[in-house]
Amino acid sequence: MKKQLLKIVKIGGNVINDEIALSLFLKDFATIEGPKILVHGGGRRATEIASEMGLKPKMINGRRVTDEANLEVVTMVYAGLLNKKIVAQLQQFSCNALGLSGADANCILAHKRIVKDIDYGFAGDVDAVNSEIIDILLQNNVTPVFCAITHDKNGQLLNTNADTIASEVAIALSDLYETELNFVFELKGVLQSIDDKNSVITQINLNKYEQLVEQGVISEGMIPKLYNCFNALEKGVGIVKIGDATLVQNETKFYTTLSLK
Amino acid sequence: MKKQLLKIVKIGGNVINDEIALSLFLKDFATIEGPKILVHGGGRRATEIASEMGLKPKMINGRRVTDEANLEVVTMVYAGLLNKKIVAQLQQFSCNALGLSGADANCILAHKRIVKDIDYGFAGDVDAVNSEIIDILLQNNVTPVFCAITHDKNGQLLNTNADTIASEVAIALSDLYETELNFVFELKGVLQSIDDKNSVITQINLNKYEQLVEQGVISEGMIPKLYNCFNALEKGVGIVKIGDATLVQNETKFYTTLSLK
Repeated sequence: MKKQLLKIVKIGGNVINDEIALSLFLKDFATIEGPKILVHGGGRRATEIASEMGLKPKMINGRRVTDEANLEVVTMVYAGLLNKKIVAQLQQFSCNALGLSGADANCILAHKRIVKDIDYGFAGDVDAVNSEIIDILLQNNVTPVFCAITHDKNGQLLNTNADTIASEVAIALSDLYETELNFVFELKGVLQSIDDKNSVITQINLNKYEQLVEQGVISEGMIPKLYNCFNALEKGVGIVKIGDATLVQNETKFYTTLSLK
Repeated sequence: MKKQLLKIVKIGGNVINDEIALSLFLKDFATIEGPKILVHGGGRRATEIASEMGLKPKMINGRRVTDEANLEVVTMVYAGLLNKKIVAQLQQFSCNALGLSGADANCILAHKRIVKDIDYGFAGDVDAVNSEIIDILLQNNVTPVFCAITHDKNGQLLNTNADTIASEVAIALSDLYETELNFVFELKGVLQSIDDKNSVITQINLNKYEQLVEQGVISEGMIPKLYNCFNALEKGVGIVKIGDATLVQNETKFYTTLSLK
Protein backbone atom coordinates (compact mmCIF):
# COMPACT_ATOMS: atom_id res chain seq x y z
CA MET A 1 0.00 0.00 0.00
CA LYS A 2 1.36 3.38 -0.97
CA LYS A 3 1.96 5.50 2.10
CA GLN A 4 0.52 9.00 2.48
CA LEU A 5 2.78 11.97 1.69
CA LEU A 6 3.97 13.95 4.73
CA LYS A 7 5.64 17.32 4.22
CA ILE A 8 8.18 18.50 6.79
CA VAL A 9 9.11 22.15 6.33
CA LYS A 10 11.90 23.90 8.22
CA ILE A 11 12.04 27.70 8.26
CA GLY A 12 14.96 29.85 9.25
CA GLY A 13 16.88 32.98 8.37
CA ASN A 14 14.92 36.03 7.32
CA VAL A 15 11.73 34.00 6.96
CA ILE A 16 11.60 33.91 10.75
CA ASN A 17 13.28 37.25 11.49
CA ASP A 18 10.91 39.32 9.35
CA GLU A 19 7.36 39.33 10.79
CA ILE A 20 5.71 40.08 7.44
CA ALA A 21 7.70 37.42 5.58
CA LEU A 22 6.83 34.95 8.35
CA SER A 23 3.15 35.75 8.17
CA LEU A 24 3.06 35.39 4.37
CA PHE A 25 4.88 32.07 4.63
CA LEU A 26 2.52 30.76 7.33
CA LYS A 27 -0.50 31.65 5.18
CA ASP A 28 0.94 29.51 2.36
CA PHE A 29 2.04 26.74 4.70
CA ALA A 30 -1.50 26.52 6.11
CA THR A 31 -2.84 25.69 2.63
CA ILE A 32 -0.62 22.60 2.17
CA GLU A 33 -2.98 19.66 1.90
CA GLY A 34 -2.48 16.48 3.86
CA PRO A 35 -0.30 15.88 6.91
CA LYS A 36 2.49 18.39 7.54
CA ILE A 37 5.03 19.40 10.17
CA LEU A 38 6.72 22.75 10.69
CA VAL A 39 10.14 23.17 12.32
CA HIS A 40 11.41 26.65 13.11
CA GLY A 41 14.78 28.03 14.02
CA GLY A 42 15.36 30.80 16.48
CA GLY A 43 16.69 33.74 14.59
CA ARG A 44 17.67 37.15 15.72
CA ARG A 45 15.05 37.69 18.42
CA ALA A 46 16.87 35.50 20.98
CA THR A 47 20.04 37.54 20.53
CA GLU A 48 18.09 40.80 20.90
CA ILE A 49 16.34 39.66 24.07
CA ALA A 50 19.55 38.27 25.57
CA SER A 51 21.11 41.66 24.92
CA GLU A 52 18.14 43.49 26.48
CA MET A 53 18.66 41.30 29.54
CA GLY A 54 22.33 42.27 29.64
CA LEU A 55 23.64 38.91 28.42
CA LYS A 56 26.38 38.72 25.83
CA PRO A 57 26.16 36.00 23.17
CA LYS A 58 29.04 33.56 23.46
CA MET A 59 30.27 32.32 20.11
CA ILE A 60 33.07 29.84 19.34
CA ASN A 61 33.93 29.25 15.65
CA GLY A 62 30.70 30.98 14.60
CA ARG A 63 28.57 28.70 16.75
CA ARG A 64 26.57 29.87 19.72
CA VAL A 65 27.71 28.51 23.06
CA THR A 66 24.72 27.93 25.31
CA ASP A 67 25.45 28.66 28.96
CA GLU A 68 22.66 28.40 31.54
CA ALA A 69 21.52 32.02 31.18
CA ASN A 70 21.44 31.75 27.38
CA LEU A 71 19.58 28.43 27.58
CA GLU A 72 16.86 30.23 29.56
CA VAL A 73 16.66 32.89 26.86
CA VAL A 74 16.45 30.46 23.93
CA THR A 75 13.87 28.37 25.81
CA MET A 76 11.78 31.50 26.37
CA VAL A 77 12.14 32.84 22.85
CA TYR A 78 12.03 29.63 20.77
CA ALA A 79 9.53 27.55 22.80
CA GLY A 80 7.55 30.51 24.10
CA LEU A 81 7.47 33.65 22.01
CA LEU A 82 8.17 32.38 18.50
CA ASN A 83 6.48 29.00 18.80
CA LYS A 84 3.24 30.39 20.23
CA LYS A 85 3.12 33.32 17.79
CA ILE A 86 3.51 30.87 14.91
CA VAL A 87 0.88 28.52 16.35
CA ALA A 88 -1.60 31.38 16.92
CA GLN A 89 -1.13 32.60 13.34
CA LEU A 90 -1.55 29.12 11.88
CA GLN A 91 -4.74 28.75 13.91
CA GLN A 92 -5.92 32.03 12.37
CA PHE A 93 -5.25 30.51 8.94
CA SER A 94 -7.32 27.43 9.88
CA CYS A 95 -4.34 25.13 10.32
CA ASN A 96 -4.73 23.18 13.57
CA ALA A 97 -1.17 23.74 14.80
CA LEU A 98 0.24 22.45 18.09
CA GLY A 99 3.62 23.71 19.30
CA LEU A 100 6.17 21.27 20.65
CA SER A 101 9.62 21.17 22.10
CA GLY A 102 11.46 17.87 22.19
CA ALA A 103 10.58 17.56 25.88
CA ASP A 104 6.84 17.57 25.16
CA ALA A 105 5.57 13.99 25.13
CA ASN A 106 9.25 13.05 24.98
CA CYS A 107 9.12 13.77 21.23
CA ILE A 108 12.85 14.32 20.76
CA LEU A 109 15.40 12.84 23.10
CA ALA A 110 18.93 14.25 23.01
CA HIS A 111 22.12 14.31 25.01
CA LYS A 112 24.34 17.22 25.96
CA ARG A 113 27.06 17.47 23.33
CA ILE A 114 30.17 15.71 24.53
CA VAL A 115 33.06 18.08 25.14
CA LYS A 116 36.03 17.44 22.87
CA ASP A 117 37.95 20.60 21.99
CA ILE A 118 35.08 23.00 22.57
CA ASP A 119 32.42 23.03 25.28
CA TYR A 120 29.23 24.15 23.52
CA GLY A 121 27.37 24.18 26.85
CA PHE A 122 23.75 23.06 26.79
CA ALA A 123 23.76 22.06 23.13
CA GLY A 124 21.85 18.88 22.39
CA ASP A 125 22.61 16.15 19.87
CA VAL A 126 19.53 14.12 18.91
CA ASP A 127 19.32 10.47 19.98
CA ALA A 128 15.73 9.51 19.18
CA VAL A 129 12.47 10.84 17.78
CA ASN A 130 9.22 9.46 19.21
CA SER A 131 7.28 9.06 15.97
CA GLU A 132 4.33 7.36 17.69
CA ILE A 133 2.95 10.46 19.41
CA ILE A 134 3.73 12.65 16.37
CA ASP A 135 1.75 10.22 14.22
CA ILE A 136 -1.19 10.30 16.66
CA LEU A 137 -1.28 14.09 16.28
CA LEU A 138 -1.07 13.87 12.48
CA GLN A 139 -3.84 11.24 12.39
CA ASN A 140 -6.02 13.72 14.27
CA ASN A 141 -5.37 16.49 11.73
CA VAL A 142 -3.05 18.31 14.10
CA THR A 143 0.03 20.01 12.62
CA PRO A 144 3.04 19.72 14.96
CA VAL A 145 5.20 22.88 15.11
CA PHE A 146 8.64 22.13 16.53
CA CYS A 147 11.00 24.63 18.07
CA ALA A 148 14.68 23.80 18.39
CA ILE A 149 14.68 22.79 22.05
CA THR A 150 15.11 19.16 23.14
CA HIS A 151 15.69 17.39 26.47
CA ASP A 152 17.74 14.57 27.94
CA LYS A 153 14.96 12.86 29.99
CA ASN A 154 16.90 13.85 33.12
CA GLY A 155 15.17 17.20 33.41
CA GLN A 156 17.67 19.10 31.29
CA LEU A 157 16.51 21.17 28.31
CA LEU A 158 18.98 21.46 25.42
CA ASN A 159 19.44 23.92 22.57
CA THR A 160 19.47 21.95 19.32
CA ASN A 161 20.11 22.77 15.68
CA ALA A 162 16.76 23.24 13.91
CA ASP A 163 17.99 21.73 10.61
CA THR A 164 18.97 18.59 12.51
CA ILE A 165 15.57 18.43 14.20
CA ALA A 166 13.85 18.71 10.82
CA SER A 167 16.00 15.93 9.35
CA GLU A 168 15.63 13.62 12.32
CA VAL A 169 11.85 14.11 12.48
CA ALA A 170 11.58 13.46 8.72
CA ILE A 171 13.74 10.32 9.03
CA ALA A 172 11.70 8.97 11.95
CA LEU A 173 8.39 9.51 10.13
CA SER A 174 9.69 7.89 6.93
CA ASP A 175 8.70 4.47 8.30
CA LEU A 176 5.06 5.59 8.35
CA TYR A 177 4.82 8.11 5.51
CA GLU A 178 6.31 9.05 2.16
CA THR A 179 8.29 12.09 3.27
CA GLU A 180 9.28 15.34 1.64
CA LEU A 181 11.62 17.64 3.55
CA ASN A 182 11.87 21.33 2.61
CA PHE A 183 14.47 23.73 3.98
CA VAL A 184 13.12 27.24 3.55
CA PHE A 185 15.29 30.33 3.99
CA GLU A 186 15.87 33.70 2.31
CA LEU A 187 17.66 32.35 -0.78
CA LYS A 188 16.17 30.60 -3.79
CA GLY A 189 18.37 27.58 -3.21
CA VAL A 190 22.04 26.67 -3.19
CA LEU A 191 23.70 29.38 -5.31
CA GLN A 192 26.54 29.00 -7.80
CA SER A 193 27.55 32.56 -6.93
CA ILE A 194 26.53 34.29 -3.74
CA ASP A 195 26.46 37.60 -5.67
CA ASP A 196 23.82 36.33 -8.10
CA LYS A 197 20.61 35.50 -6.22
CA ASN A 198 19.26 33.74 -9.31
CA SER A 199 22.22 31.41 -9.85
CA VAL A 200 20.37 28.48 -8.29
CA ILE A 201 21.94 25.06 -8.68
CA THR A 202 18.78 23.05 -9.33
CA GLN A 203 20.17 19.58 -8.71
CA ILE A 204 22.92 18.43 -6.36
CA ASN A 205 23.90 14.81 -5.82
CA LEU A 206 26.61 13.53 -3.48
CA ASN A 207 29.34 13.68 -6.16
CA LYS A 208 28.44 17.20 -7.17
CA TYR A 209 28.25 18.21 -3.49
CA GLU A 210 31.85 17.11 -2.96
CA GLN A 211 32.96 19.02 -6.06
CA LEU A 212 31.13 22.16 -4.93
CA VAL A 213 32.71 22.00 -1.46
CA GLU A 214 36.14 21.57 -3.08
CA GLN A 215 35.50 24.57 -5.35
CA GLY A 216 34.41 26.66 -2.35
CA VAL A 217 30.92 27.18 -3.84
CA ILE A 218 29.43 25.47 -0.80
CA SER A 219 31.02 26.70 2.41
CA GLU A 220 30.39 27.66 6.02
CA GLY A 221 26.75 27.29 7.15
CA MET A 222 25.71 25.51 3.96
CA ILE A 223 27.97 22.54 4.74
CA PRO A 224 26.07 21.31 7.86
CA LYS A 225 22.75 22.19 6.15
CA LEU A 226 23.59 19.96 3.19
CA TYR A 227 24.95 17.31 5.52
CA ASN A 228 21.47 17.19 7.09
CA CYS A 229 19.92 16.89 3.62
CA PHE A 230 22.03 13.94 2.53
CA ASN A 231 21.72 12.29 5.93
CA ALA A 232 17.93 12.47 5.55
CA LEU A 233 18.04 10.99 2.03
CA GLU A 234 20.32 8.17 3.14
CA LYS A 235 17.97 7.28 5.99
CA GLY A 236 14.75 7.06 4.02
CA VAL A 237 13.42 10.56 3.36
CA GLY A 238 12.01 10.59 -0.18
CA ILE A 239 12.56 14.15 -1.39
CA VAL A 240 14.70 16.99 -0.04
CA LYS A 241 14.52 20.56 -1.39
CA ILE A 242 16.13 23.85 -0.39
CA GLY A 243 14.62 27.18 -1.41
CA ASP A 244 12.82 30.33 -0.39
CA ALA A 245 9.28 30.72 0.97
CA THR A 246 7.74 30.15 -2.46
CA LEU A 247 8.75 26.46 -2.15
CA VAL A 248 5.55 25.69 -0.24
CA GLN A 249 3.42 27.31 -2.95
CA ASN A 250 4.36 24.51 -5.37
CA GLU A 251 4.64 27.08 -8.16
CA THR A 252 8.26 28.08 -8.18
CA LYS A 253 10.76 26.33 -10.40
CA PHE A 254 13.70 27.91 -8.59
CA TYR A 255 14.96 25.66 -5.85
CA THR A 256 17.63 23.07 -5.22
CA THR A 257 16.72 19.40 -5.19
CA LEU A 258 19.12 17.08 -3.39
CA SER A 259 19.65 13.47 -4.42
CA LEU A 260 22.09 10.73 -3.49
CA LYS A 261 22.98 9.72 -7.09
CA MET B 1 -20.99 3.11 33.30
CA LYS B 2 -18.97 4.94 35.90
CA LYS B 3 -16.59 7.39 34.29
CA GLN B 4 -12.87 7.38 35.03
CA LEU B 5 -11.52 9.88 37.55
CA LEU B 6 -9.52 12.77 36.07
CA LYS B 7 -7.50 15.03 38.37
CA ILE B 8 -6.89 18.63 37.33
CA VAL B 9 -4.30 20.34 39.51
CA LYS B 10 -3.51 24.04 39.38
CA ILE B 11 -0.30 25.32 40.97
CA GLY B 12 0.55 28.90 41.80
CA GLY B 13 2.14 31.14 44.40
CA ASN B 14 5.33 29.93 46.05
CA VAL B 15 4.88 26.42 44.63
CA ILE B 16 5.89 27.88 41.28
CA ASN B 17 8.24 30.63 42.48
CA ASP B 18 10.45 28.33 44.56
CA GLU B 19 12.41 25.90 42.34
CA ILE B 20 12.86 23.33 45.11
CA ALA B 21 9.18 23.44 46.15
CA LEU B 22 8.23 23.11 42.48
CA SER B 23 10.47 20.12 41.97
CA LEU B 24 9.15 18.36 45.08
CA PHE B 25 5.59 19.02 43.96
CA LEU B 26 6.24 17.71 40.44
CA LYS B 27 7.72 14.50 41.84
CA ASP B 28 4.50 13.91 43.78
CA PHE B 29 2.27 14.99 40.90
CA ALA B 30 4.02 12.47 38.61
CA THR B 31 2.94 9.63 40.91
CA ILE B 32 -0.80 10.41 40.64
CA GLU B 33 -2.35 7.37 39.00
CA GLY B 34 -4.77 7.67 36.11
CA PRO B 35 -5.38 10.64 33.81
CA LYS B 36 -4.30 14.02 35.08
CA ILE B 37 -3.81 17.60 33.91
CA LEU B 38 -1.54 20.29 35.34
CA VAL B 39 -2.22 24.02 35.03
CA HIS B 40 0.42 26.49 36.14
CA GLY B 41 0.36 30.19 36.86
CA GLY B 42 3.16 32.55 36.04
CA GLY B 43 4.58 33.79 39.27
CA ARG B 44 7.40 36.14 39.99
CA ARG B 45 9.75 35.18 37.15
CA ALA B 46 7.78 37.14 34.52
CA THR B 47 8.02 40.29 36.63
CA GLU B 48 11.76 39.76 37.14
CA ILE B 49 12.42 39.25 33.44
CA ALA B 50 10.24 42.20 32.44
CA SER B 51 12.28 44.29 34.84
CA GLU B 52 15.60 42.95 33.44
CA MET B 53 14.32 44.01 30.01
CA GLY B 54 13.58 47.48 31.33
CA LEU B 55 9.78 47.07 31.35
CA LYS B 56 7.73 48.30 34.27
CA PRO B 57 4.77 46.18 35.38
CA LYS B 58 1.50 48.03 34.90
CA MET B 59 -1.02 47.32 37.62
CA ILE B 60 -4.57 48.62 38.02
CA ASN B 61 -6.47 47.65 41.20
CA GLY B 62 -3.87 44.99 41.95
CA ARG B 63 -4.33 43.37 38.54
CA ARG B 64 -1.62 43.23 35.93
CA VAL B 65 -2.37 45.19 32.77
CA THR B 66 -0.96 43.39 29.75
CA ASP B 67 0.37 45.75 27.10
CA GLU B 68 2.07 44.34 24.00
CA ALA B 69 5.57 44.32 25.50
CA ASN B 70 4.33 42.59 28.65
CA LEU B 71 2.35 40.08 26.59
CA GLU B 72 5.61 39.12 24.88
CA VAL B 73 7.23 38.62 28.28
CA VAL B 74 4.44 36.50 29.75
CA THR B 75 4.30 34.43 26.54
CA MET B 76 8.03 33.83 26.78
CA VAL B 77 8.07 33.06 30.49
CA TYR B 78 4.81 31.13 30.92
CA ALA B 79 4.66 29.20 27.61
CA GLY B 80 8.43 28.95 27.18
CA LEU B 81 10.59 28.96 30.27
CA LEU B 82 8.22 27.71 32.99
CA ASN B 83 6.15 25.36 30.84
CA LYS B 84 9.15 23.60 29.30
CA LYS B 85 11.04 23.39 32.61
CA ILE B 86 7.98 21.77 34.18
CA VAL B 87 7.51 19.40 31.23
CA ALA B 88 11.20 18.38 31.25
CA GLN B 89 11.05 17.66 34.99
CA LEU B 90 7.85 15.63 34.70
CA GLN B 91 9.49 13.64 31.90
CA GLN B 92 12.39 12.99 34.28
CA PHE B 93 9.85 11.66 36.81
CA SER B 94 8.37 9.34 34.13
CA CYS B 95 5.22 11.39 33.61
CA ASN B 96 4.61 11.81 29.87
CA ALA B 97 3.88 15.54 30.02
CA LEU B 98 3.07 17.74 27.00
CA GLY B 99 2.99 21.52 27.43
CA LEU B 100 0.15 23.53 25.93
CA SER B 101 -1.04 27.07 25.58
CA GLY B 102 -4.64 27.66 24.63
CA ALA B 103 -3.51 28.36 21.06
CA ASP B 104 -2.06 24.86 20.66
CA ALA B 105 -4.60 22.67 18.84
CA ASN B 106 -7.04 25.48 19.60
CA CYS B 107 -7.40 24.02 23.11
CA ILE B 108 -8.68 27.19 24.77
CA LEU B 109 -10.41 29.90 22.81
CA ALA B 110 -10.78 33.31 24.46
CA HIS B 111 -11.57 36.91 23.62
CA LYS B 112 -9.77 40.08 24.63
CA ARG B 113 -11.47 41.39 27.75
CA ILE B 114 -14.01 44.03 26.82
CA VAL B 115 -13.06 47.48 28.09
CA LYS B 116 -15.54 48.89 30.59
CA ASP B 117 -13.89 51.11 33.21
CA ILE B 118 -10.43 49.63 32.92
CA ASP B 119 -8.49 48.48 29.85
CA TYR B 120 -6.65 45.35 30.96
CA GLY B 121 -4.90 45.16 27.58
CA PHE B 122 -4.29 41.68 26.17
CA ALA B 123 -6.16 39.87 28.93
CA GLY B 124 -8.26 36.96 27.73
CA ASP B 125 -11.62 35.74 28.97
CA VAL B 126 -12.27 32.08 28.12
CA ASP B 127 -15.02 31.24 25.61
CA ALA B 128 -14.50 27.54 24.92
CA VAL B 129 -12.31 24.56 25.78
CA ASN B 130 -11.69 21.96 23.08
CA SER B 131 -12.08 18.82 25.19
CA GLU B 132 -11.78 16.49 22.19
CA ILE B 133 -8.04 16.96 21.61
CA ILE B 134 -7.34 17.05 25.37
CA ASP B 135 -9.14 13.71 25.68
CA ILE B 136 -7.11 12.23 22.79
CA LEU B 137 -3.93 13.14 24.67
CA LEU B 138 -5.26 11.68 27.94
CA GLN B 139 -6.32 8.47 26.16
CA ASN B 140 -2.72 8.14 24.96
CA ASN B 141 -1.35 8.48 28.50
CA VAL B 142 -0.15 11.99 27.84
CA THR B 143 -0.43 14.54 30.67
CA PRO B 144 -1.35 18.01 29.36
CA VAL B 145 0.44 20.87 31.14
CA PHE B 146 -1.31 24.18 30.53
CA CYS B 147 0.22 27.60 30.90
CA ALA B 148 -2.01 30.64 31.29
CA ILE B 149 -1.88 31.86 27.68
CA THR B 150 -4.87 31.58 25.35
CA HIS B 151 -5.72 32.93 21.89
CA ASP B 152 -8.63 34.45 20.00
CA LYS B 153 -8.33 32.40 16.74
CA ASN B 154 -7.46 35.68 14.97
CA GLY B 155 -3.76 35.31 15.64
CA GLN B 156 -3.80 37.16 18.96
CA LEU B 157 -2.33 35.55 22.08
CA LEU B 158 -3.96 36.54 25.38
CA ASN B 159 -2.84 36.49 29.01
CA THR B 160 -5.42 34.57 31.01
CA ASN B 161 -5.99 33.85 34.68
CA ALA B 162 -4.63 30.38 35.49
CA ASP B 163 -7.35 29.61 38.06
CA THR B 164 -9.95 30.28 35.38
CA ILE B 165 -8.15 28.03 32.92
CA ALA B 166 -8.07 25.23 35.49
CA SER B 167 -11.80 25.61 36.19
CA GLU B 168 -12.81 25.83 32.55
CA VAL B 169 -10.69 22.81 31.58
CA ALA B 170 -12.16 20.82 34.50
CA ILE B 171 -15.70 21.84 33.51
CA ALA B 172 -15.17 20.89 29.85
CA LEU B 173 -13.75 17.47 30.75
CA SER B 174 -16.61 16.74 33.19
CA ASP B 175 -18.72 15.43 30.33
CA LEU B 176 -16.17 12.68 29.74
CA TYR B 177 -14.67 12.06 33.18
CA GLU B 178 -15.43 12.22 36.88
CA THR B 179 -13.41 15.32 37.73
CA GLU B 180 -11.49 16.47 40.78
CA LEU B 181 -10.03 19.97 40.73
CA ASN B 182 -7.23 20.90 43.14
CA PHE B 183 -5.93 24.42 43.67
CA VAL B 184 -2.44 24.15 45.15
CA PHE B 185 -0.63 27.13 46.65
CA GLU B 186 1.54 27.93 49.66
CA LEU B 187 -1.24 27.77 52.29
CA LYS B 188 -2.92 24.70 53.75
CA GLY B 189 -6.30 25.91 52.57
CA VAL B 190 -8.68 28.79 53.20
CA LEU B 191 -7.67 30.13 56.61
CA GLN B 192 -9.91 31.41 59.40
CA SER B 193 -7.08 33.72 60.44
CA ILE B 194 -4.25 34.69 58.10
CA ASP B 195 -1.93 34.82 61.15
CA ASP B 196 -2.54 31.18 62.00
CA LYS B 197 -1.34 28.99 59.11
CA ASN B 198 -3.09 25.99 60.71
CA SER B 199 -6.53 27.58 60.99
CA VAL B 200 -7.80 25.77 57.90
CA ILE B 201 -11.53 25.92 57.26
CA THR B 202 -12.04 22.33 56.12
CA GLN B 203 -15.45 22.72 54.50
CA ILE B 204 -17.00 25.72 52.74
CA ASN B 205 -20.37 25.69 51.04
CA LEU B 206 -22.01 28.59 49.22
CA ASN B 207 -23.81 29.86 52.36
CA LYS B 208 -20.68 29.74 54.44
CA TYR B 209 -18.72 31.43 51.63
CA GLU B 210 -21.09 34.40 51.70
CA GLN B 211 -20.79 34.62 55.49
CA LEU B 212 -16.99 34.47 55.32
CA VAL B 213 -16.86 37.22 52.68
CA GLU B 214 -19.17 39.36 54.84
CA GLN B 215 -16.94 38.77 57.88
CA GLY B 216 -13.87 39.71 55.86
CA VAL B 217 -12.29 36.27 56.43
CA ILE B 218 -12.30 35.74 52.65
CA SER B 219 -11.03 38.81 50.81
CA GLU B 220 -8.96 40.09 47.90
CA GLY B 221 -7.38 37.34 45.76
CA MET B 222 -9.31 34.57 47.52
CA ILE B 223 -12.63 35.92 46.21
CA PRO B 224 -11.99 35.23 42.51
CA LYS B 225 -10.25 31.94 43.43
CA LEU B 226 -13.34 30.75 45.29
CA TYR B 227 -15.60 32.07 42.54
CA ASN B 228 -13.73 29.73 40.18
CA CYS B 229 -14.26 26.85 42.62
CA PHE B 230 -18.02 27.32 42.92
CA ASN B 231 -18.37 27.98 39.20
CA ALA B 232 -16.66 24.63 38.57
CA LEU B 233 -18.93 22.79 41.03
CA GLU B 234 -22.05 24.35 39.53
CA LYS B 235 -21.01 23.27 36.04
CA GLY B 236 -20.32 19.62 36.76
CA VAL B 237 -16.92 19.28 38.44
CA GLY B 238 -17.26 16.60 41.12
CA ILE B 239 -14.77 17.64 43.80
CA VAL B 240 -12.91 20.91 44.41
CA LYS B 241 -10.15 21.26 47.01
CA ILE B 242 -7.75 24.06 47.98
CA GLY B 243 -4.52 23.34 49.82
CA ASP B 244 -0.75 23.18 49.76
CA ALA B 245 1.51 20.85 47.77
CA THR B 246 0.73 17.91 50.11
CA LEU B 247 -2.77 17.79 48.56
CA VAL B 248 -1.51 15.62 45.71
CA GLN B 249 0.07 13.16 48.16
CA ASN B 250 -3.40 12.09 49.34
CA GLU B 251 -2.08 11.94 52.90
CA THR B 252 -2.80 15.34 54.33
CA LYS B 253 -6.01 16.03 56.23
CA PHE B 254 -5.46 19.77 56.11
CA TYR B 255 -7.18 21.32 53.12
CA THR B 256 -10.40 23.07 52.24
CA THR B 257 -13.15 21.20 50.42
CA LEU B 258 -15.68 23.31 48.55
CA SER B 259 -19.28 22.23 48.08
CA LEU B 260 -22.44 23.87 46.82
CA LYS B 261 -24.69 22.84 49.75
